[in-house]
Amino acid sequence: MIRVAINGYGNLGRGAEQAISKSEDMELVVVFTRRDPASVTTQGAPVARIDDMPAWADKVDVCLNCGGSATDLAEQGPAAAAHFTTVDSFDTHAEIPSYFASVDAAAKASGHLAIISTGWDPGLFSMLRVLGDSVLPDGTTTTFWGPGVSQGHSDAVRRIEGVLDARQYTLPVAETVDAVKAGEDVELTTRSMHRRDCYVVAAEGADLARIEKEIVEMPNYFADYDTTVTFISEQEMAAKHAGIPHGGTVIRRGRTSDGVAERITFELALDSNPEFTGSVVSAMGRAAARMAARGQTGARTVFDVTLADLSPKDPAELRAYYL
Amino acid sequence: MIRVAINGYGNLGRGAEQAISKSEDMELVVVFTRRDPASVTTQGAPVARIDDMPAWADKVDVCLNCGGSATDLAEQGPAAAAHFTTVDSFDTHAEIPSYFASVDAAAKASGHLAIISTGWDPGLFSMLRVLGDSVLPDGTTTTFWGPGVSQGHSDAVRRIEGVLDARQYTLPVAETVDAVKAGEDVELTTRSMHRRDCYVVAAEGADLARIEKEIVEMPNYFADYDTTVTFISEQEMAAKHAGIPHGGTVIRRGRTSDGVAERITFELALDSNPEFTGSVVSAMGRAAARMAARGQTGARTVFDVTLADLSPKDPAELRAYYL
Repeated sequence: MIRVAINGYGNLGRGAEQAISKSEDMELVVVFTRRDPASVTTQGAPVARIDDMPAWADKVDVCLNCGGSATDLAEQGPAAAAHFTTVDSFDTHAEIPSYFASVDAAAKASGHLAIISTGWDPGLFSMLRVLGDSVLPDGTTTTFWGPGVSQGHSDAVRRIEGVLDARQYTLPVAETVDAVKAGEDVELTTRSMHRRDCYVVAAEGADLARIEKEIVEMPNYFADYDTTVTFISEQEMAAKHAGIPHGGTVIRRGRTSDGVAERITFELALDSNPEFTGSVVSAMGRAAARMAARGQTGARTVFDVTLADLSPKDPAELRAYYL
Repeated sequence: MIRVAINGYGNLGRGAEQAISKSEDMELVVVFTRRDPASVTTQGAPVARIDDMPAWADKVDVCLNCGGSATDLAEQGPAAAAHFTTVDSFDTHAEIPSYFASVDAAAKASGHLAIISTGWDPGLFSMLRVLGDSVLPDGTTTTFWGPGVSQGHSDAVRRIEGVLDARQYTLPVAETVDAVKAGEDVELTTRSMHRRDCYVVAAEGADLARIEKEIVEMPNYFADYDTTVTFISEQEMAAKHAGIPHGGTVIRRGRTSDGVAERITFELALDSNPEFTGSVVSAMGRAAARMAARGQTGARTVFDVTLADLSPKDPAELRAYYL
């Protein structure tokens, strides 16, 4: 059994816990938290303070860092790599090279392995972008996101005066997706690729026209998109918009000879963004534990992981039944 | 530059040649053939007899075996691994374990590496089946093939008396694909998953009703499917059915918690089956050459290849722009 720790018990940490419960070769041995451990209730695993990590060094094969990128991981990534083989879902794209360097240094110094930036984007989508680029070098890759909930955009709407609650869905523009798949010469702009739908619970007596105007004209968040605003009741919000769905599509279209094109499409449709992300992080934890057991140290990405290491199945079984 | 040999110059060999011409880090240095080399005209590479392989051992980094499974590869795979690092597209699923063993023995004995059964199925589809199974352990994988030309079924129709030429398309049943994607409880049978469309050029005066009956009632090939037969002219056959398109879809649908499902869909839409297969074989050749340069020997599959080895790009570039 691969002994797993989860570091950070928010939506993603709970998603990873759920994924581990479905993996026969993995067991959750501890959850680390910055909160009072007595205030945290897991599915069964003991809870320890993040400061207690060193005491767990010999009892854990891999630690899944489930904190958020902006606030937590820049510090937690290198810190955890001092004690454990780690996996995380660092997703601030522009900072990946510097984050990789700092985790690489910490992991090498302590003799551990660390797989950074797993999940689905970065993560599976990145894998498919490299696959498409490698197999069809003469082509173009396009990524669409959604339909799915954007927490950042939902929060932005909630900050408007008179808004009690809000949920923002990012949606790919279907006509543009179809045009890209067909290889048509379509202009790819912010507006042509995605639109935004907002569901808003307004305070009684609030000026709905003003709220709608503030949303659709909000710079960066909405002004460059076609945005719809629908006012709903608190009850409808609770009944229909409680989930955290997401997904998206990576399309690689490439020419192999004159007038001959090939298309690779990879699509995710997720009822729960954090549960799926936790599932990927958990599977990458299996790979990390195996790679570390073979003596590998330093930072890695999803590009360095084989499917044989990702799978719980035996290589001979994979060849016989999956190839 | 990675120095590449192509062994076998049929549709797949020409597809691989075309793919190498689009890869800046690879060059085709020789084509091996069983025919008279003087009768083979390549895009530029020299042509040598298959018996001359030993003389090329030091001039080739990887040899792409482009023969067919049934007839050629069982013998050619182990034979070529005695002289070169190799890649092939062996696709007789039931015989993969024994083929792997025989290539593994030959490659280990000669100190070479051999990646078997690449292409798209087996190959990319296999990779996605393992990815889906690893990330969503509690779920079901379904593979649909087509729309695309089946050579075996086209040949079967051509053998019927009075048939001058024929092209058979395998098509996934769209309603069943949609039902699988939606997670509906649909029965997956031969007939519910795929249908077959035949385009036939008949001899003048041939009994068309008899030909159609022989096709749709043909055991194994057509009797278990809904099959349509359309008689067309030789001219229409040449104008509309000259290509070798293919493709398909791998769908993994898994539960991550009660009532919460996630779906991974991987789809290929190929204008040219041999050119795309050649593109995959060529990219796997890059990975094989790199793995061999690190001292790896023996047989491998696509499950043992990292995306970093598959890509012509530098790891730092991949992290900065593809992650």
